[in-house]
Amino acid sequence: MSQQRVVETTFRVRYAETDAMGVVYHAEYLVWFEVGRGEYFRAQGEDYARWEQQGYYLPVSEVHARYHAPAHYGDHVAVRTWVQEVRSRGLTLEYEVNHAETQQRLVSGWTKHICMDGQGRACRLPADMLALLEVS
Amino acid sequence: MSQQRVVETTFRVRYAETDAMGVVYHAEYLVWFEVGRGEYFRAQGEDYARWEQQGYYLPVSEVHARYHAPAHYGDHVAVRTWVQEVRSRGLTLEYEVNHAETQQRLVSGWTKHICMDGQGRACRLPADMLALLEVS
Amino acid sequence: MSQQRVVETTFRVRYAETDAMGVVYHAEYLVWFEVGRGEYFRAQGEDYARWEQQGYYLPVSEVHARYHAPAHYGDHVAVRTWVQEVRSRGLTLEYEVNHAETQQRLVSGWTKHICMDGQGRACRLPADMLALLEVS
Amino acid sequence: MSQQRVVETTFRVRYAETDAMGVVYHAEYLVWFEVGRGEYFRAQGEDYARWEQQGYYLPVSEVHARYHAPAHYGDHVAVRTWVQEVRSRGLTLEYEVNHAETQQRLVSGWTKHICMDGQGRACRLPADMLALLEVS
Repeated sequence: MSQQRVVETTFRVRYAETDAMGVVYHAEYLVWFEVGRGEYFRAQGEDYARWEQQGYYLPVSEVHARYHAPAHYGDHVAVRTWVQEVRSRGLTLEYEVNHAETQQRLVSGWTKHICMDGQGRACRLPADMLALLEVS
Repeated sequence: MSQQRVVETTFRVRYAETDAMGVVYHAEYLVWFEVGRGEYFRAQGEDYARWEQQGYYLPVSEVHARYHAPAHYGDHVAVRTWVQEVRSRGLTLEYEVNHAETQQRLVSGWTKHICMDGQGRACRLPADMLALLEVS
Repeated sequence: MSQQRVVETTFRVRYAETDAMGVVYHAEYLVWFEVGRGEYFRAQGEDYARWEQQGYYLPVSEVHARYHAPAHYGDHVAVRTWVQEVRSRGLTLEYEVNHAETQQRLVSGWTKHICMDGQGRACRLPADMLALLEVS
Repeated sequence: MSQQRVVETTFRVRYAETDAMGVVYHAEYLVWFEVGRGEYFRAQGEDYARWEQQGYYLPVSEVHARYHAPAHYGDHVAVRTWVQEVRSRGLTLEYEVNHAETQQRLVSGWTKHICMDGQGRACRLPADMLALLEVS
């Protein structure tokens, strides 16, 4: 049975991320998913910036988020990220944002990505990415 | 049978909304959904800011977006917004973002909202909101 | 004596642009300056996107803003933009953001830009840009 | 002679912060100044969120930034923050953003703040804030 690797990254809520309701604006959580994704790759010893330098991109093709509780300015939050599925031409990542101190669940969601080359064409994930992403 | 009211709002892509892939960053479309939503209410003769002044909020409880094609700096884009479902304590809106000149479909998605009072408690949509939102 | 061309562009405040103080977050006005700048070029019959396609960039090298009064969600605001100075290798633009209905002055500021080529080197503004920008 | 306390905070560039030039969008540095400011207060044992709970706000009344070199996605950056001046009704903070590994200076700037009460009126900084901010 496979074991799911989960990478957690923590940071504080910025004032810029709040809105007039006094809480974090809902679209900002997608940026936090992106932060979690970047740290997931780094935790695997990889760097998304290097992939782009080699001509591979992983644009988001679909996103879903469910909002459970609000975050406020200065809150210490934790984004947990894991790979849900790897396909030959893309992957799905899942995320959970929690309050780092109370562990309250704030937002959960997922992003689907396709592999794209420098000309904007869908392509297969290169072998080293696949090896990196597949959990065995 | 009900007829769906669709409200369209157009604007140009800001440089701030692009990312290092040279296209609009995926989270920005959620902001465009919000712009479409605000214009939808205004087109009905209503103003979301007024609702907040009366102590009613419509926070996003769930969001979904599918990315079909990228938008670029300066592109003239159109957001089409309509109500998909109204419930006693919330509603679902749908969106389609198209390139305003070519009509190419860029992004489609939906947002679910719950009605919340000033104390952060879920509440029923007031009668005048229901009347406004229900399409008959 | 030269006559200053001033270009005005109007739009509504987005919820995403507000913060927990209930007003527009200060950094968003720099984005509005950028919107004003883009419309300034378009009003001159030019398009900044076309310059980039030709390998010329106008990154911001310095910015200054002074905040006079706050803007709120849904406010109709107007950005007035004009060229303050053109040099062989750059230019300075000035901005004034006003409430479009009350004409109250909200923010004033300026941005300095240098001309840069595709390799990131400072360069002279091409002749057609100079002609466009110089007010005589 | 007074000794200037400087607080440094580090983080990585988010993809959301980049633009179509492939570098960090200029307005994002103002957000980084805000992050530096928040950490400056925390390093002094204080929390800006607590001030707001007590009815004191420190909105930005003026900002200036000078861009020396660009930052890229994934770069590890450091924001250094210090108090430049404290007045009875406001303060000025200064910032320097450097690349955390190469120490290259990326952006420098300052923000002026006024003290405001819950009714939006300018007011004196309370005694405990003054004590905290004044470097002796």
